[in-house]
Amino acid sequence: MLVKSSATIHLKLPRASTSVLVKNLYLSCDPYFRRRMNKPQGRYVIPSLLVRNMFPVNLDILNSIIWLLFSMLQPIAGVGVAKVVDAGHSYFKKGDLVWGFTGWEEYTISAPRTLFKIQHTDVPLSYYTGTLGMPGMTAYYGFYEICAPKKGEYVFVSAASGAVSQLVGQFAKLTGCYVVGTAGTNEKVELLKNKCGFDEAFNYKEEQDLDAALKRYFPPGIDIYFENVGGKMLEAVLLNMRSNGRISACGMISQYNLYREEGVRNLSCIIAKQLLVKGFIVSNHFNLYPKYMEMVIPLIKEGKICYIEDIVEGLESEPAALVGLFSGKNVGKQVVVVAHE
Amino acid sequence: MLVKSSATIHLKLPRASTSVLVKNLYLSCDPYFRRRMNKPQGRYVIPSLLVRNMFPVNLDILNSIIWLLFSMLQPIAGVGVAKVVDAGHSYFKKGDLVWGFTGWEEYTISAPRTLFKIQHTDVPLSYYTGTLGMPGMTAYYGFYEICAPKKGEYVFVSAASGAVSQLVGQFAKLTGCYVVGTAGTNEKVELLKNKCGFDEAFNYKEEQDLDAALKRYFPPGIDIYFENVGGKMLEAVLLNMRSNGRISACGMISQYNLYREEGVRNLSCIIAKQLLVKGFIVSNHFNLYPKYMEMVIPLIKEGKICYIEDIVEGLESEPAALVGLFSGKNVGKQVVVVAHE
Repeated sequence: MLVKSSATIHLKLPRASTSVLVKNLYLSCDPYFRRRMNKPQGRYVIPSLLVRNMFPVNLDILNSIIWLLFSMLQPIAGVGVAKVVDAGHSYFKKGDLVWGFTGWEEYTISAPRTLFKIQHTDVPLSYYTGTLGMPGMTAYYGFYEICAPKKGEYVFVSAASGAVSQLVGQFAKLTGCYVVGTAGTNEKVELLKNKCGFDEAFNYKEEQDLDAALKRYFPPGIDIYFENVGGKMLEAVLLNMRSNGRISACGMISQYNLYREEGVRNLSCIIAKQLLVKGFIVSNHFNLYPKYMEMVIPLIKEGKICYIEDIVEGLESEPAALVGLFSGKNVGKQVVVVAHE
Repeated sequence: MLVKSSATIHLKLPRASTSVLVKNLYLSCDPYFRRRMNKPQGRYVIPSLLVRNMFPVNLDILNSIIWLLFSMLQPIAGVGVAKVVDAGHSYFKKGDLVWGFTGWEEYTISAPRTLFKIQHTDVPLSYYTGTLGMPGMTAYYGFYEICAPKKGEYVFVSAASGAVSQLVGQFAKLTGCYVVGTAGTNEKVELLKNKCGFDEAFNYKEEQDLDAALKRYFPPGIDIYFENVGGKMLEAVLLNMRSNGRISACGMISQYNLYREEGVRNLSCIIAKQLLVKGFIVSNHFNLYPKYMEMVIPLIKEGKICYIEDIVEGLESEPAALVGLFSGKNVGKQVVVVAHE
């Protein structure tokens, strides 16, 4: 016989705590999680999102710790939108909406410095996992700060309907660039052209020869490439870059599930074409967040930026959502709703 | 019966010419010649040294022209030290020593803007093909302007006894960096340590595992890599770069004789370690030449910079010297003497 019983737990921080106890509402689901599951090899460090600032230790050690946490089945640390339940820090009070470093769980105890208080609540809250959060800042920093775009330049974006790149393409259009994106389904290609305002988009899975496809879409060549995929796409892009082109390297999702990375040819183009290739981890550039918000909030409110989200319900959906990213199952930014309030 | 006869030709420019007729004394022999012999493929352009500034046309067209010139067995264009025989430009007069864009021939008609008048003649004239010419500027621009070195940083240099890198290593030591170089013979390794003042040097041909070798020489990792070789060396270096490292991409000699470039793994390190990779062609940065001369001339005169040259006699030695570069036959900067005065 099944006996049902229920009890109420009053969640509260210990009296001396300086942390913030939050109830998670939306959780972000991002490709970088996959890389943190790899056992660190050699000096190949993978600094995790906001953790770096929390623990100023050697990155190798930090990386090993992160991997251990994964392997020991601790809740996965990530970014989310949450509501403050109890705060040991005077900046936060019960009921505040925040976004920042939480975890794949219903409630998280976070360090105050890893949380941003949400100021604008007249936009969808889930946007703080996307256009108003880490992916938005990634698009902003990688495109404006690294690529320094000029009006009329030719911009190519891979994984273009993803959390970051759909914004890069729209920022590029607002700058007066010509923008082509690539994605893995015709549905995404249509969204890029019809909803995000890309000049062109194509389904890379339908192209036999990526080099030929890029030559077709960029007869004059590419000035700016926002790199999200790596491997064969990068190999083809290098052949099609113009002199003094810039490549903002944000991710290489095509490589994360491989036992050993693919070799990429055509790197000598970096010299012959005097290319800049710059990798970055956005968590080190959040000093620019207020400047970004100043730019993007009016654009959203005026409907000049759209943001495609793929929202699934329930914490239990998060693992499948993560796995889905690597086969391109998501259409737009993958968000998981943990609780609605 | 063999009849010997001789006649004197008086070399002179046509009256209306604005060019400069020079007698070549020293010619530079550099790896980039090899790349200009490839038929340009697709948009893979190879802007030639000083030619770009001379002909402001589309680079694809220019590249095809350069290739055609090679294939039609014209004298190979290159950089050299020469003496003015006749000048159609008032800045130059007969007897002036110059360096700049000449050719693999005894006499060349050059455009005035491709020649620099030699101001300092109390240093070996051949240095203007090396430390005081294009390789020197390459080391200066790539190391100081791209890599922005700081005292105490860890610097790795490949092809380290070559025309450019022997200088990079010495500039790095003058900046207070820890410098390790790699070369392909034990003789070169000894020169790097004993003559050029590198902290360490190793023969890459004696290493089974380049990654392990780099970990041995750089336990803390590499901050700055001056890239001359590409391929497997770059693959190993990427694993050993530190966060925020800089890679100045100057050449990839290991790839120039291959039908198809090798694939390079570990590119995702560019993201995880937030690396900067910058390719450059030094001819676009000669606005800094006076600043460089101001720095380097006193260093040479005070004996604080040494420069190893591999000088062969006679124009007929140039092709073999060029071929020799790709098997590492040269020890130091490869120079060919065409005439002694």
